[in-house]
Amino acid sequence: MVTDFPVPDGYRVLESDTVLAVLAGNSELTAVLGGAPSAWSAREVSDGNMNRVFLVEGPSGGVAAKQALPWIRVVEDWKFPVSRIDYEVAALRQMATFAPGRVPEVLAYEPALGLAVLELLAPHIVLREGLVAGKIYPNLADQAGDFLSFSLYRGSDFALDTETKKALVARFAGNAHLCATTEDVVFTGPYHAAPLNRWTSPQLDDDVRALRGDTDAKLAAAELKRRFRTATESLIHGDLHTGSFMVTETDTRAIDFEWALYGPMGFDAGALIGNLLLAWISQAGHAEERGEDRRPVTDWLEQAIPTLWERFTAGFLDLGERENEGGQFPAELFSESAPIKGALRRFLDHVWRDAVGFAGAKMIRRIVGISHVADFEAINDPDLRAGRERIALRLARSMIVERDLYPDPVTLVRAARAVMR
Amino acid sequence: MVTDFPVPDGYRVLESDTVLAVLAGNSELTAVLGGAPSAWSAREVSDGNMNRVFLVEGPSGGVAAKQALPWIRVVEDWKFPVSRIDYEVAALRQMATFAPGRVPEVLAYEPALGLAVLELLAPHIVLREGLVAGKIYPNLADQAGDFLSFSLYRGSDFALDTETKKALVARFAGNAHLCATTEDVVFTGPYHAAPLNRWTSPQLDDDVRALRGDTDAKLAAAELKRRFRTATESLIHGDLHTGSFMVTETDTRAIDFEWALYGPMGFDAGALIGNLLLAWISQAGHAEERGEDRRPVTDWLEQAIPTLWERFTAGFLDLGERENEGGQFPAELFSESAPIKGALRRFLDHVWRDAVGFAGAKMIRRIVGISHVADFEAINDPDLRAGRERIALRLARSMIVERDLYPDPVTLVRAARAVMR
Repeated sequence: MVTDFPVPDGYRVLESDTVLAVLAGNSELTAVLGGAPSAWSAREVSDGNMNRVFLVEGPSGGVAAKQALPWIRVVEDWKFPVSRIDYEVAALRQMATFAPGRVPEVLAYEPALGLAVLELLAPHIVLREGLVAGKIYPNLADQAGDFLSFSLYRGSDFALDTETKKALVARFAGNAHLCATTEDVVFTGPYHAAPLNRWTSPQLDDDVRALRGDTDAKLAAAELKRRFRTATESLIHGDLHTGSFMVTETDTRAIDFEWALYGPMGFDAGALIGNLLLAWISQAGHAEERGEDRRPVTDWLEQAIPTLWERFTAGFLDLGERENEGGQFPAELFSESAPIKGALRRFLDHVWRDAVGFAGAKMIRRIVGISHVADFEAINDPDLRAGRERIALRLARSMIVERDLYPDPVTLVRAARAVMR
Repeated sequence: MVTDFPVPDGYRVLESDTVLAVLAGNSELTAVLGGAPSAWSAREVSDGNMNRVFLVEGPSGGVAAKQALPWIRVVEDWKFPVSRIDYEVAALRQMATFAPGRVPEVLAYEPALGLAVLELLAPHIVLREGLVAGKIYPNLADQAGDFLSFSLYRGSDFALDTETKKALVARFAGNAHLCATTEDVVFTGPYHAAPLNRWTSPQLDDDVRALRGDTDAKLAAAELKRRFRTATESLIHGDLHTGSFMVTETDTRAIDFEWALYGPMGFDAGALIGNLLLAWISQAGHAEERGEDRRPVTDWLEQAIPTLWERFTAGFLDLGERENEGGQFPAELFSESAPIKGALRRFLDHVWRDAVGFAGAKMIRRIVGISHVADFEAINDPDLRAGRERIALRLARSMIVERDLYPDPVTLVRAARAVMR
């Protein structure tokens, strides 16, 4: 694996003051911000693991400036390619055409600085923060379902001719180091004593030991990894957890596209479903610790997963009818829509099967791997936290090893409710 | 679909005399051919559908010079990209490292002329010609099986790390026009009234009409097309029929790599198996028309298919043990080889399932599509020919629609023998 990545000529790490000078050089940004650069302010609000983010505000408006560092922001001796921002920008621009209104607009891109300047999403907050706080998002399932159906359908062979699609595959193949990192941290790291793994200890020590000796789970993870590496079904986000959505009560946007790749559709759907399950399973911990009634949010989360899937598949089937332009179902062969719809339904069943496995893998890695989630981390009492984590871990293990037990979202949700009792 | 392809600066169609002048400019080739260029002779021996081929001989040895034309050789108003030779050369060079000894060596490459100069394979003949003549090749199944195991394993995620493999995926993604052509002629054209389709008429008219109304067959073909477009399992040949092997009684080489792509392993395996089935099914026609005893060659062909599969899978499993370097089964997770071998066996079952479907699709397209095979064309009596073609067509239709009926090569061969009675 490559570990020495070229840094662009002229690259420098930006600070709140130097980022303003860069933005001032771009007339499109000065128009958005308004007034003179001296009237602008920048505030570093880096939040994710990977990058620097500045909120920049001027008299007329604001922008978000995201700079890729030559390392991982939270682990500075872990070198990481600045080029990831190039794939993020390419993916965002593609998504603006595939799923308009569901991603922030790219306002400017400075490759030499690894800097993307994006539409400011305000008053949006990160979905995961809202879920930890017990908030309900009535439009989330529909809007995230729309994002999935539009982005996954329109990047696929159902919508694109072979030349166009393969050009996109080639365009994103260069993001291989990030793909390899995903493969490591999702499908390998959690199943052995990887150096940066952690878990609620000693409460989960036995569970971790069991997982590391669980050949069936390891083989299931390896098979999911194989699908991740070989199924170029569509342009996927590649890290679509609940921290990759910015939301208000009425709006939902997907962000953080630096992991984008051509991969299996079920990986995006599964990431979201798995993280919604973590949010749901964790609620009882927050309820107990904070003395809050979390039944409204758990009731909503329970419905959100089937609603998301229903919206996604309905949208996908609808696009299949209206945008059958990829040569997958040529008009010369199929004069009626019923057989096409049947084939798309069978395809979506296969996406669901993938999604169950990927969801399980994503849940496992957030409990015993390198990178954890606030849904559990915000539960202070380790016994209480470990109890919820164990429930999630066992369900997730079953989801990767016994996928056939969960043939549809309703069955999955019923099983989740049963193990939470 | 793109139909206007750039022709390299300085490109010209070569003739027997002008090709000699080009070769004379390359010191490596002059060393192979020996003597002065005036002592060389070139003979055009174009045989396949696509390209010009010259055999060039000098006092010390010979070479094969293959020039890609800006059109399809046998259909001159069908424009086709000269760049295909670039992918052929890239694939041959890759295959020389993956499957040494099983492909001709690239001696020189002149991109501006679309010209690849290859090791002369002599006294080899095209395998299909040998099969039509009733010849037996005792080493074919083993050597073709070796080609499949070495090429398919070593181009896959089992052998290559993610960065290396994705770079190869990107390298070959540009060969998209040839992939789109394969998709058209294999998975679409045979199932409707495509302009250049032909078949033994009127004998097969009812069969063709039935196929064009056969929704199950069309849906099966569409699903196989989807796999062909989305499964980047390995660097595959992309057109591995019996006309793409040059053979002697002791040696087997794969040629004609211009269709190379990252695709499903079962497509290569299926192309060969399907064409061996066509060769086998056609033998009774040759036997009757020529008054020859074809039992020895049919007995051998019946065994060749299971032997090929056995050799391929044994070689693949062996490589899985010796060259487990792709990160698919990390040593940190799998300290013993038994679980890895089990996973590879399940993977090979999935390759077999794909291969049965692809074999069926390849058989159908050779009987009712644009491009036919000498196995049937060499049977002069149309009634006799159509009788053999119908047997192949019905078996092939079952292979794409009812794949589960053929869980292994022995079952497939038994079914083929039954329908030939």
